[in-house]
Amino acid sequence: MQDFKYYAPTEVIFGRNSETQIAAMVQKYGGKKVLIHYGGQSAERSGLLAVVRKSLDSAGIAYVELGGVVPNPRLSLVRKGIELCKAENVDFLLAVGGGSVIDSIKAIGYGLDYKGDVWDLFIGKGEADTCRPLGVVLTIPAAGSEMSEGCVITKEAEQEPVTSTDMKRSYDVDLCRPRFAIMNPERTLTLPPFQTACGITDIMMHTMERYFSHDDDMLITDAVAESILKTVRQCGPKVLTAPLNYHLRAQIMWAGSIAHNGLTGCGTTGDWATHNIEHELSALYNVAHGAGLAAIWPHWAEYVLDENPTRFAQFAVNVLDVPNNFRSAKETAIEGIAAMKQFYHSIGMPTSIQELIGRKATEEEMQLMANKCSIGKTSTVGNLKKLAYNDILKIYQLANR
Amino acid sequence: MQDFKYYAPTEVIFGRNSETQIAAMVQKYGGKKVLIHYGGQSAERSGLLAVVRKSLDSAGIAYVELGGVVPNPRLSLVRKGIELCKAENVDFLLAVGGGSVIDSIKAIGYGLDYKGDVWDLFIGKGEADTCRPLGVVLTIPAAGSEMSEGCVITKEAEQEPVTSTDMKRSYDVDLCRPRFAIMNPERTLTLPPFQTACGITDIMMHTMERYFSHDDDMLITDAVAESILKTVRQCGPKVLTAPLNYHLRAQIMWAGSIAHNGLTGCGTTGDWATHNIEHELSALYNVAHGAGLAAIWPHWAEYVLDENPTRFAQFAVNVLDVPNNFRSAKETAIEGIAAMKQFYHSIGMPTSIQELIGRKATEEEMQLMANKCSIGKTSTVGNLKKLAYNDILKIYQLANR
Repeated sequence: MQDFKYYAPTEVIFGRNSETQIAAMVQKYGGKKVLIHYGGQSAERSGLLAVVRKSLDSAGIAYVELGGVVPNPRLSLVRKGIELCKAENVDFLLAVGGGSVIDSIKAIGYGLDYKGDVWDLFIGKGEADTCRPLGVVLTIPAAGSEMSEGCVITKEAEQEPVTSTDMKRSYDVDLCRPRFAIMNPERTLTLPPFQTACGITDIMMHTMERYFSHDDDMLITDAVAESILKTVRQCGPKVLTAPLNYHLRAQIMWAGSIAHNGLTGCGTTGDWATHNIEHELSALYNVAHGAGLAAIWPHWAEYVLDENPTRFAQFAVNVLDVPNNFRSAKETAIEGIAAMKQFYHSIGMPTSIQELIGRKATEEEMQLMANKCSIGKTSTVGNLKKLAYNDILKIYQLANR
Repeated sequence: MQDFKYYAPTEVIFGRNSETQIAAMVQKYGGKKVLIHYGGQSAERSGLLAVVRKSLDSAGIAYVELGGVVPNPRLSLVRKGIELCKAENVDFLLAVGGGSVIDSIKAIGYGLDYKGDVWDLFIGKGEADTCRPLGVVLTIPAAGSEMSEGCVITKEAEQEPVTSTDMKRSYDVDLCRPRFAIMNPERTLTLPPFQTACGITDIMMHTMERYFSHDDDMLITDAVAESILKTVRQCGPKVLTAPLNYHLRAQIMWAGSIAHNGLTGCGTTGDWATHNIEHELSALYNVAHGAGLAAIWPHWAEYVLDENPTRFAQFAVNVLDVPNNFRSAKETAIEGIAAMKQFYHSIGMPTSIQELIGRKATEEEMQLMANKCSIGKTSTVGNLKKLAYNDILKIYQLANR
């Protein structure tokens, strides 16, 4: 068991009536002038933005608004947000949306307090000392960013072709953990099936990335991780057939937070190769992160299986209810990977690049992605097995069969 | 599923090297003059106090010390601590010990900032607005106070007989949640078997108190709760036969924190009758809280079983590996209660008042306790079944067979 730190200070207000607390929570955490940050028009159409504005108005809290966050949130909008907040003397940031909006506002929070260019933080050229305080009104259970230290931003290309130089990078430190998160599962009842399934995939992957390691002695964390994974696995297909079921939506929503607030990684090293390998897919093809994860994970698993077959067997039995083949951990593990592929298909997720983008990737594209993922062949990803350029390329090729 | 709030902001530093962070954490949370609060001489003998002093000295942080906290921590020492801290201008409180020391320092923290008498808070005559910041160096996994909002203090009688007017009361608000907790499982290797078993019992009970409710639709919280309970159930007897096993001690220690930081109660109402009924036992006989819980729980369970037999059956099967009798939830439930009694005996815990105090309680004592527990027959305890004076008395009588 590894020494660990656990720190998840976000105050979560969860349930049907949680939105009544928005203004009180902003005030509790010192907000006097707020940036309301959101994505597309759904926040307006759903009436949620009106709820947020009304809450702030009724408490006499001033605010400015900035919409337009897109999936794989862009550095250009982050910079626009930083300028706006400086001009308007914003002292509190409120994200209304899902992981992309939250990550965008986290980057704005860093940029407001950091002296240099905020992108420095994402490419290792600088460290943040502080981050402007922020809160979340969550609408999409998936990224877990509402309680996490994670922040992923995509820097657009400065010249054509766009796809060849897009860069998706993360900066993960505790400073940006939200002060509060308002979570009303009712807001997720109208999520389309594909987005719901992407969320389910992402939630499970946040726990799986921490689960697959060489640290086999963390019984309590394993048990908690497996309980979250199994519950999501059981509720996921059900919520797709009963999207208006509050009860099922609530399980998924809360699972999304505790799968990624650090709890499922206490005492384990964590792997994160699948996330890194996927980031290049979504940067290159602008596909949904969750779908990209499903397209990569089975092939990553197949490639690294021999590093710790008993771990994959435990996953197969305890999470996926695969019968244990006691004579061969590896055979149980292989059945588990197949069961996970079946699960992905059952919720409408792809398990190959072809299913993900509608065609096969070219060899050049895969080399480009493997090159970026390994930072020009200088770095590795993953921990269960440290994956260099050639390993990463091989996994793209396995996913491209 | 009930709406809920989840807030567990404590920064946990867990593992063999965690004590190297003491001074840094005190400084991070603004401490310049510290009260080191502890219990008996074991903190000195073990060398832990020397480690704490050295850490603060090396960072140039001033401190004063106050030892002498006893199990069921006393109001008189809390008052002494408040006076000392005022005289010495202490701005940060550091508990070195287990739940009693942490609860004592929490009460000191309230008292330093509260205008009236600190006992007012515990008897509903006042509310705290703030609590002086505090940190923990944990030595006993049991109470979960290192991450919780709980604080239980015993007010000694002001005249004889002592036992008849002792009062053990709790004040549970978020203000006192520790800023940080340093947890090194090595510090728990020398815990005596009885204290270890009391801790195991208390840890499980903190989750069980939240688990037994009428809220049967909180799948994710149930799954997490069962995973923690089952892990502790499996590791508990093992750690008693292998007390120096770091790995097993670590599971128990981390379980103690997450069993009581709020995680296992998300979306459930919680019961807490067993705790309330036990508090009168430990106030009257000055017995260990964990042992008192084991002496009460099976009888509480038997008494309230019919309120929700399927819940007790789920507990029996998912936590205790009792075979499911599909034809009768109640029979499965009854087997579960018997299995829990066996478990308590397997770790050396009592399951009756006679086993707890070495004799049967008198009828007068039980009436006295039931009277205090129901606040002079004016109040009820528990939620699964609301228990008034007569119910509480009956449970004492069942435990006294």
